[in-house]
Amino acid sequence: MPDDWEVPVARTREEVDAHRATLERLHDPARVLALSDGVFAIIITLLVLEVHVPELTQGHSLREALREVRPSLTAFAVSFILAGMYWVGHRDLFALIRRTDRGLVWLNILYLLPLCLLPFGASLLGRYDQEPVALRVYGLVLILIAAMRVIIWLYATNRPHLLWERLDSRQRRAGLALNLFPGLVYLLAFLLARAAPGLSLMIYAAMPLLYFLSITILRSGRRRDEEYADFT
Amino acid sequence: MPDDWEVPVARTREEVDAHRATLERLHDPARVLALSDGVFAIIITLLVLEVHVPELTQGHSLREALREVRPSLTAFAVSFILAGMYWVGHRDLFALIRRTDRGLVWLNILYLLPLCLLPFGASLLGRYDQEPVALRVYGLVLILIAAMRVIIWLYATNRPHLLWERLDSRQRRAGLALNLFPGLVYLLAFLLARAAPGLSLMIYAAMPLLYFLSITILRSGRRRDEEYADFT
Amino acid sequence: MPDDWEVPVARTREEVDAHRATLERLHDPARVLALSDGVFAIIITLLVLEVHVPELTQGHSLREALREVRPSLTAFAVSFILAGMYWVGHRDLFALIRRTDRGLVWLNILYLLPLCLLPFGASLLGRYDQEPVALRVYGLVLILIAAMRVIIWLYATNRPHLLWERLDSRQRRAGLALNLFPGLVYLLAFLLARAAPGLSLMIYAAMPLLYFLSITILRSGRRRDEEYADFT
Amino acid sequence: MPDDWEVPVARTREEVDAHRATLERLHDPARVLALSDGVFAIIITLLVLEVHVPELTQGHSLREALREVRPSLTAFAVSFILAGMYWVGHRDLFALIRRTDRGLVWLNILYLLPLCLLPFGASLLGRYDQEPVALRVYGLVLILIAAMRVIIWLYATNRPHLLWERLDSRQRRAGLALNLFPGLVYLLAFLLARAAPGLSLMIYAAMPLLYFLSITILRSGRRRDEEYADFT
Repeated sequence: MPDDWEVPVARTREEVDAHRATLERLHDPARVLALSDGVFAIIITLLVLEVHVPELTQGHSLREALREVRPSLTAFAVSFILAGMYWVGHRDLFALIRRTDRGLVWLNILYLLPLCLLPFGASLLGRYDQEPVALRVYGLVLILIAAMRVIIWLYATNRPHLLWERLDSRQRRAGLALNLFPGLVYLLAFLLARAAPGLSLMIYAAMPLLYFLSITILRSGRRRDEEYADFT
Repeated sequence: MPDDWEVPVARTREEVDAHRATLERLHDPARVLALSDGVFAIIITLLVLEVHVPELTQGHSLREALREVRPSLTAFAVSFILAGMYWVGHRDLFALIRRTDRGLVWLNILYLLPLCLLPFGASLLGRYDQEPVALRVYGLVLILIAAMRVIIWLYATNRPHLLWERLDSRQRRAGLALNLFPGLVYLLAFLLARAAPGLSLMIYAAMPLLYFLSITILRSGRRRDEEYADFT
Repeated sequence: MPDDWEVPVARTREEVDAHRATLERLHDPARVLALSDGVFAIIITLLVLEVHVPELTQGHSLREALREVRPSLTAFAVSFILAGMYWVGHRDLFALIRRTDRGLVWLNILYLLPLCLLPFGASLLGRYDQEPVALRVYGLVLILIAAMRVIIWLYATNRPHLLWERLDSRQRRAGLALNLFPGLVYLLAFLLARAAPGLSLMIYAAMPLLYFLSITILRSGRRRDEEYADFT
Repeated sequence: MPDDWEVPVARTREEVDAHRATLERLHDPARVLALSDGVFAIIITLLVLEVHVPELTQGHSLREALREVRPSLTAFAVSFILAGMYWVGHRDLFALIRRTDRGLVWLNILYLLPLCLLPFGASLLGRYDQEPVALRVYGLVLILIAAMRVIIWLYATNRPHLLWERLDSRQRRAGLALNLFPGLVYLLAFLLARAAPGLSLMIYAAMPLLYFLSITILRSGRRRDEEYADFT
């Protein structure tokens, strides 16, 4: 794997230094994080826009009207918590990353793409929670997000010059497993959507709980491997 | 309270240093603030989206049409000022915080959740300001925000390794009181919503005024305890 | 003017240093700028949301449908350029500011409030450009923005400890004039709205042109007072 | 080209230093990037707002309803990828830029203007992909973006004091060509819109593919001129 980073064109010492500084700026993750945080902030708040003040019509109490708002409120809360989880994961990952190359920049953009559809998926499911197609659309969004996370993990950890600290193969496998596992569970829920919509829905609902549970277990574990406990 | 921070796995000196640097990056508050500021910017401007250009129909002056816009304008201004107050409080709090652990990161996300509902609450109240249910929904949002502020205050000040400067127990109690007090007042307004909606509304309206008044009093006080005057 | 900044409570040397560092963090403008830039980014793009893809109905060409989009496009462009001008002014002002105290933080929030109404004003005017009430609403928004800019300018330049570099009274007067002048012109347009709506509209249209013209003149002037040429 | 930067008013040494520091702050690109990243984050997510949960009516399966969502989904994905491409280009350009003067600040704002219309153009084309007028509107937006990129490139590279590293004329021509080329292709598609709408659409669709292809080719080229390979 020949890497641009390591092969500067031969020049004078000063030129090489200036060139190296330019490369560092080109690979600085700062703006990748700024764009990502902006997108996360929008995704996290997007479904609030769907929570409209209900119209009061004849013979219709406000309490009843608010009951109509409940599905959009639930969808907002679910999407909020999920986007929060993904943001925490993104922050943990990029704490390991020192430089971004063009591949990583684009993988990050392609990760944000399905992420932006999360509010739509949550909203759809909040409205039609027994419909197999809604369950599948929601599952598909989550699977795509998980797939992108796996790809970014493999890409970044395979390129030690992008990282602050080289990871050994055991650490890389552990991180891979933690990223791969939710994707496989979501795939199961996706496949069960038609045959057992209730079970499928239950799996989607259980995952965030499982996330918080697994963090608690990992953190209380004997061998404290902070990076992995933190990268759940 | 055993803390991950203080117990690095034994390694060589260089590995320990690198590990420590990674931990610092994992606990850097920068992205927590970036996400929060993004969310605050959206919340602060959200209700402007509700201020629509009125449609002119037959026998209907623009002035009358603008009168229809007034409730959404008021809701926007109220929500703007409240979100501004919360943002100032958030900024003051995080000026004390040096590192964020996973708990604090999640508490901050859970603080942003009710905050995002503030525009909805303000909008609902702007439209149905005599309705007990609207008064209760608005109160509930404010109580949840206050509760999260209290929890974050207790969590952070209990963990000196997260702070720039350790606070003594008097300072912690003072900060707690300042965070708890508005929550209790909002609880009162919430409980009065059915029996005395007018009084409940008056309490909600009075709180921002009280906030600016109390700052003025605290700042002109003899013993200048800048942290607390500033953390109102 | 006794200032909190200058009167730390007497303690040991280390405590005083730590206290001073906390004060510096409390007065750091970073998050004020982050929130402002977020709000500006939203304001600048807000009216794009109003540019909807037109619906094609029977006997209605797309070209005709697009003609219907024109007012919202114009309103978007006007609001975009104006918000851009205000953002440039905000950036220039805060390049002079080293620390923010509570007063400046709140003045900045209160400056963002009328700014958020700019898209509404531009949209209203784009739709009813001959209506005196629309001309007045638009003028009022611009007057409020100008007033807040004047207040912030006076507040900040009166407090040298908030600035990187102390300004002399001539510089302060020059900056005041540059901030006050547009406000007075907008006030004139506001007052003329009923008697001469055409003239009023012309004044609003002329101001951005005047802005770019005055910059060009100031910059080509003999005595290059960069700060003021830049703070137009 | 007399430049403000180089001609400070004669003063004492300390004043000159302070003045120079103020100039550096006035020319700091940080907030230009913050505003741009905020605008990019909004543009990138804007069309998600158009992907609404479909309403189920009598005799209408969810699958059919989702089919109605497809055009808005496609428009979102196209606009997302294009905005991503432009953001990557913006990031690469500003990695070369050390200081921003008033001209560059305004050119950047004027670059963001047509960029904000990209979602509208993509949405229009997603809905009426055979209509010459839709093809022209979309083309016009892309041409304006390309034109602003060319102007910014010429402006910045003509002013070495704005750059980290001076570019030689070969490098400047290479960068110009890379910015000019897409604009000319879009102009062709624009001109073909009436005579050959199918071909015009195909050109629009081909450009992103061409972008990724040309990067791959440039990167695998023998003489690795990292700046240009990276500035595609």
